[in-house]
Amino acid sequence: MKLKLGMIGGGQGAFIGAVHRIAARIDDQYELVCGAFSSDPAKSKASGLLLNLSENRIYNSWEELIEKEKQLPENERVQVISIVTPNYVHFAPAKAALENGFHVILDKPATFSLQEAKDLQQTIEQTGTCFCLTHTYTGYPMVKEARQFALSGKLGKIRKVYVEYPQGWLSKFEEGSDNKQASWRTDPAKSGIAGAMGDIGTHAFNLCEYVSGLQINQLCADINTVVEGRKLDDDGAVLLKFTNGASGVLIATQVAAGEENNVKIRVYGENGGLEWQQADANTLKVMLLDKPVEIWRTGGGYTSSFAQQNTRTPAGHPEGYLEAFANLYRNFALTVKARSEGKQLQAEWLDFPGIEEGVRGMAFIENVIASGKSDKKWTDFTI
Amino acid sequence: MKLKLGMIGGGQGAFIGAVHRIAARIDDQYELVCGAFSSDPAKSKASGLLLNLSENRIYNSWEELIEKEKQLPENERVQVISIVTPNYVHFAPAKAALENGFHVILDKPATFSLQEAKDLQQTIEQTGTCFCLTHTYTGYPMVKEARQFALSGKLGKIRKVYVEYPQGWLSKFEEGSDNKQASWRTDPAKSGIAGAMGDIGTHAFNLCEYVSGLQINQLCADINTVVEGRKLDDDGAVLLKFTNGASGVLIATQVAAGEENNVKIRVYGENGGLEWQQADANTLKVMLLDKPVEIWRTGGGYTSSFAQQNTRTPAGHPEGYLEAFANLYRNFALTVKARSEGKQLQAEWLDFPGIEEGVRGMAFIENVIASGKSDKKWTDFTI
Amino acid sequence: MKLKLGMIGGGQGAFIGAVHRIAARIDDQYELVCGAFSSDPAKSKASGLLLNLSENRIYNSWEELIEKEKQLPENERVQVISIVTPNYVHFAPAKAALENGFHVILDKPATFSLQEAKDLQQTIEQTGTCFCLTHTYTGYPMVKEARQFALSGKLGKIRKVYVEYPQGWLSKFEEGSDNKQASWRTDPAKSGIAGAMGDIGTHAFNLCEYVSGLQINQLCADINTVVEGRKLDDDGAVLLKFTNGASGVLIATQVAAGEENNVKIRVYGENGGLEWQQADANTLKVMLLDKPVEIWRTGGGYTSSFAQQNTRTPAGHPEGYLEAFANLYRNFALTVKARSEGKQLQAEWLDFPGIEEGVRGMAFIENVIASGKSDKKWTDFTI
Amino acid sequence: MKLKLGMIGGGQGAFIGAVHRIAARIDDQYELVCGAFSSDPAKSKASGLLLNLSENRIYNSWEELIEKEKQLPENERVQVISIVTPNYVHFAPAKAALENGFHVILDKPATFSLQEAKDLQQTIEQTGTCFCLTHTYTGYPMVKEARQFALSGKLGKIRKVYVEYPQGWLSKFEEGSDNKQASWRTDPAKSGIAGAMGDIGTHAFNLCEYVSGLQINQLCADINTVVEGRKLDDDGAVLLKFTNGASGVLIATQVAAGEENNVKIRVYGENGGLEWQQADANTLKVMLLDKPVEIWRTGGGYTSSFAQQNTRTPAGHPEGYLEAFANLYRNFALTVKARSEGKQLQAEWLDFPGIEEGVRGMAFIENVIASGKSDKKWTDFTI
Repeated sequence: MKLKLGMIGGGQGAFIGAVHRIAARIDDQYELVCGAFSSDPAKSKASGLLLNLSENRIYNSWEELIEKEKQLPENERVQVISIVTPNYVHFAPAKAALENGFHVILDKPATFSLQEAKDLQQTIEQTGTCFCLTHTYTGYPMVKEARQFALSGKLGKIRKVYVEYPQGWLSKFEEGSDNKQASWRTDPAKSGIAGAMGDIGTHAFNLCEYVSGLQINQLCADINTVVEGRKLDDDGAVLLKFTNGASGVLIATQVAAGEENNVKIRVYGENGGLEWQQADANTLKVMLLDKPVEIWRTGGGYTSSFAQQNTRTPAGHPEGYLEAFANLYRNFALTVKARSEGKQLQAEWLDFPGIEEGVRGMAFIENVIASGKSDKKWTDFTI
Repeated sequence: MKLKLGMIGGGQGAFIGAVHRIAARIDDQYELVCGAFSSDPAKSKASGLLLNLSENRIYNSWEELIEKEKQLPENERVQVISIVTPNYVHFAPAKAALENGFHVILDKPATFSLQEAKDLQQTIEQTGTCFCLTHTYTGYPMVKEARQFALSGKLGKIRKVYVEYPQGWLSKFEEGSDNKQASWRTDPAKSGIAGAMGDIGTHAFNLCEYVSGLQINQLCADINTVVEGRKLDDDGAVLLKFTNGASGVLIATQVAAGEENNVKIRVYGENGGLEWQQADANTLKVMLLDKPVEIWRTGGGYTSSFAQQNTRTPAGHPEGYLEAFANLYRNFALTVKARSEGKQLQAEWLDFPGIEEGVRGMAFIENVIASGKSDKKWTDFTI
Repeated sequence: MKLKLGMIGGGQGAFIGAVHRIAARIDDQYELVCGAFSSDPAKSKASGLLLNLSENRIYNSWEELIEKEKQLPENERVQVISIVTPNYVHFAPAKAALENGFHVILDKPATFSLQEAKDLQQTIEQTGTCFCLTHTYTGYPMVKEARQFALSGKLGKIRKVYVEYPQGWLSKFEEGSDNKQASWRTDPAKSGIAGAMGDIGTHAFNLCEYVSGLQINQLCADINTVVEGRKLDDDGAVLLKFTNGASGVLIATQVAAGEENNVKIRVYGENGGLEWQQADANTLKVMLLDKPVEIWRTGGGYTSSFAQQNTRTPAGHPEGYLEAFANLYRNFALTVKARSEGKQLQAEWLDFPGIEEGVRGMAFIENVIASGKSDKKWTDFTI
Repeated sequence: MKLKLGMIGGGQGAFIGAVHRIAARIDDQYELVCGAFSSDPAKSKASGLLLNLSENRIYNSWEELIEKEKQLPENERVQVISIVTPNYVHFAPAKAALENGFHVILDKPATFSLQEAKDLQQTIEQTGTCFCLTHTYTGYPMVKEARQFALSGKLGKIRKVYVEYPQGWLSKFEEGSDNKQASWRTDPAKSGIAGAMGDIGTHAFNLCEYVSGLQINQLCADINTVVEGRKLDDDGAVLLKFTNGASGVLIATQVAAGEENNVKIRVYGENGGLEWQQADANTLKVMLLDKPVEIWRTGGGYTSSFAQQNTRTPAGHPEGYLEAFANLYRNFALTVKARSEGKQLQAEWLDFPGIEEGVRGMAFIENVIASGKSDKKWTDFTI
């Protein structure tokens, strides 16, 4: 049976809402049954009709969605709610959904503030509902393979982690035009205290902790607002220290003019290193000291179950961003179903980001912005 | 409104059936309503149930599917039938579907023989139904861009076309084990007179005619069965002549041990050239004489409407094989709906392979196998 | 002690003469002592002076060079003569040099006709002098590694060989302007019966026999003169058969507009394949069935003695075309010296192309042009 | 006429001495006439004999070299002295050479301490001799092109500079074995106060100032000694601020296990960016906002005179590390000769690193090590 899915946000013109819907469809684990697609009721309705929803399941607000859905009979009622609104509308609907027994898929970063994320964490613990935070890049098979490789110990102790997310799309004052994406992402009232660091810095942060299996415990940030008139940071670079003694660098910028979205991670240990980048997403470069570099590929028979269960096609037929996103949705669905059916959970199904990643991501934002303002070199990573 | 989709073939364990279903789901233009997933009724049923179909819409045979569906009220009845069976079960269900007013999406190569393809072409003309042949690679945005570039005349007269499809998966006698994909593809009773040439040679052939906008009129083939005991060709190379005087080379092999599916095409004219390969599917290399090579990318604002309408995500978030496949499904749906609603058809919607490509592909198979057996250098491309 | 080197051809404005001289200098095994750099005595003199030669060792003609040098005392006399003239001035000076006891380094293709090459072969056998034909690409460390890998048997029986040499520099009628390189290479009186096939087809031919360790015994060629007014072929594609039953494709074209000099070879056997291309010259892609592709690199500690002895710098500091060329010169010098000193010759030193490759290259030209004109599919490779 | 070259250091077993000698030979501008190749007279002699030097020009010490050479008649005497010793033997011989009227080519980093570099700078100014510091990477044609592009203003104001030099060869305690390169480079008595930062950090530093045309005025460093027992840093990452307000990141590490020498630089301005890396040394990626990325290539007819005059072969025949090094030697020779002949100097000839770069490099070392020890975030770049 498919899970009944509702959506908050993601109306016409939104970018990430459409991505979530495709991700939900790819593996046929969900059926979209309702939505509150916009704070503007007319727009919500128009969007819902385009998605072939019944009019009575298209709501004027997220509050109405939760209110009405919980009154429906259990076999009709929405089960999972995807929240794809700007950051300032994450916490309230997520908390309400969770408290009313709905499972939640939430776009990143988790919330508007760290405090909200910690509150959400408590709510999730108390309600026992399932929660997924869509850090897309962890859904790529070769990112999963990188993590498995790092965890396997074959690299020895991890020493260095380099992660970078260079974008160029905010090189001009885009928020001055009617670029909807640019507008809310550069608006402190909607985005929070961070711009680039919240939007893509959190992806980079999550990726480096996910792949290395390590946690950052100190950082030293250079945070910049490069484009004149912009209200939030659009650029930053961060020196990192990890609990095991490793060190690293995180780069996130939206003013690297000419760059697309080539998020890239490299991890080095005593015996070798790993490299993955979105521009060649189905490849994991495995470097072992004094040996030829190995090119591990999505679909390779030698890959781990974590890669294989997140792959749909034979090696050489590229899977991309939408499939990575779909892996989050599918693994979440398998987890939700197994839990509800009391079935044994496979480790591969549980391999999606949750509220712990959400809290750490929000802590990253607060710590990195604090460090950016500090004259001290090192800022402790506090939660 | 979604189109009602039925499927013939594609039961559990099949590869391409699952791909078709994902492709149909991605853009939400179809709803799977029925299927005859296997010639084994039990397997058909099991497969259909896994796909959440009502039991009464899961059929024991394709004949039953067509028979029963046409008796359903128009607003329930299947509208589009996807046929994803081995080649020897293409023609009969396709013809029956078309004759009963259903639109058809057919996996390639079109049929078992050229004669069948020509028959199908006539049927389509007579019935006025819509037909799509799933030559996946034409669905890639950057393949479409390559075609638009070649057609634009910017390269000048096209002189050279090189296309290659190297695979390695049949390097051993796989049909000796229980590899289902290998078994039918190397079996003349199921595949037809060609192995590699039918399976991937037709893709390469289609790609070079699609991108160049030219037609082959002569060929000279070296066709080999490399692996001992194999009943069909697993390797070939073909010299090509085009009607405009251009020449080229087509390589298709399944014994290039270590290769995945890196189909690649290069086209050169008087003023420059183009290169695309699946391993870097979102890139089109544009080479103009005495200028720096340009890297055109999926999602680039400078791309044509043909690329842009077949792209879902911003540049740098890779779209892959499944999205290319989905582009065929979506464009077909837009065409079917526009036709049924009497709406104006956009050129971009019509940009999917049809029966003409199917007939030419089958002619390629017959001509290339004939040439392989001939002592003459050049064989005319006859239909 | 350095070998005393003389040069025939390679005056001001010539391309390949300068390359030979750099190649000779890189490893300090030669000292340029004399030359006849042009058939125009004034130009020869001017060229020699620029090269810091004593005026009395700059000659008006190659005949004079040989005549005068042989009269010098042995410890002054030139020992090795490099011949870097257009093809029609290869045979006579080479033969004269050999007959007068000088060792010869000759640019490819060996001669103007196959007959001349066979004559030269006899001369070399009779005189016992040393001879090197500068098929540059065999000098690359990773090309040598490819050969060693193929010969090692790790690929199993070789089945497929694909080689290509795409250039774009003759896409226009360059010989109509004062492009000196274009003029003689497209002139049958200077180049011989072949244009592209002689100039770069022979490189491709040599590379595929060198790397695979196999010999071609049949071919089927499509030879074209694409640019109007051109007197020789500027494009061709050839189907290949090898004595061990393998087959392949050779592509050589000078009208692939936008291409530079990316000669590329791929060899596949029962268990895997190899790929090398000049654009990434320090990399050898090693593909083994069902394993990650391995990236073997110049300077890698795991490479063979053949690669290591032809490498000067640590891995990652790229060595290029001039170093590959220098490897031919150095290995030839080591061979000449060892022979003259009666020392044991290492296999690595002998690993440079000689007259056998020269004869086969000229046979390739004659056979491929004959095949291009033939209606028969297969032409036996005869010498 | 060739310049008479002497060498201090670079005896048998040394790495960089051989590189310098090849670089000096490639363009035939130098003749090696003398050397003091080792502090061990026997080794110096053996090395010199292998290089075909007269015994009386092989010296027991650098002091003797300078003493004896200055007594030779001017037309025999050495003109340019290359110093290729470990850092602690840079200053004294360089100063002595300059004071005795010899031109000097010095391996990087300039000296053992900043103070020495400043002293050398004064000496050069006072003596009017020519001086070259061999920051190899500035010799690559596409690095020169990058600089010209950045200086042209086409990128607009430069905002970001990322430079990295990842190596893996010191991932183990190599200095514990008899690895000569590792031993002196990790020994504070021979290398100075910095390990990785001196050895490769200075290259990265120089490259980012050279390409961007900017100067660093603040930095914040994380400097690590990762391998146990090592006496100097083997890893570091540095946040950078430039005088024009731009910011950046410099990474230099010798413990990125599996990496070779892929130094890489990226520069972004308001309108676009540039990327160059040694692994693809003949390519410059030019990214302009909203346009296809352009691939500029060594040998491209569209490149600047700075690239073209530092290129020897047609596009697609790769030139590498030794040619880049040779460009420094050739440009230095052209400068020395033009100056001595009172000729007009071309800007392209003067395009090699000199003592200003040497002083800044030594200041980088002192500032970056100081910053590494500081609790303050930003350290001013002082000289």
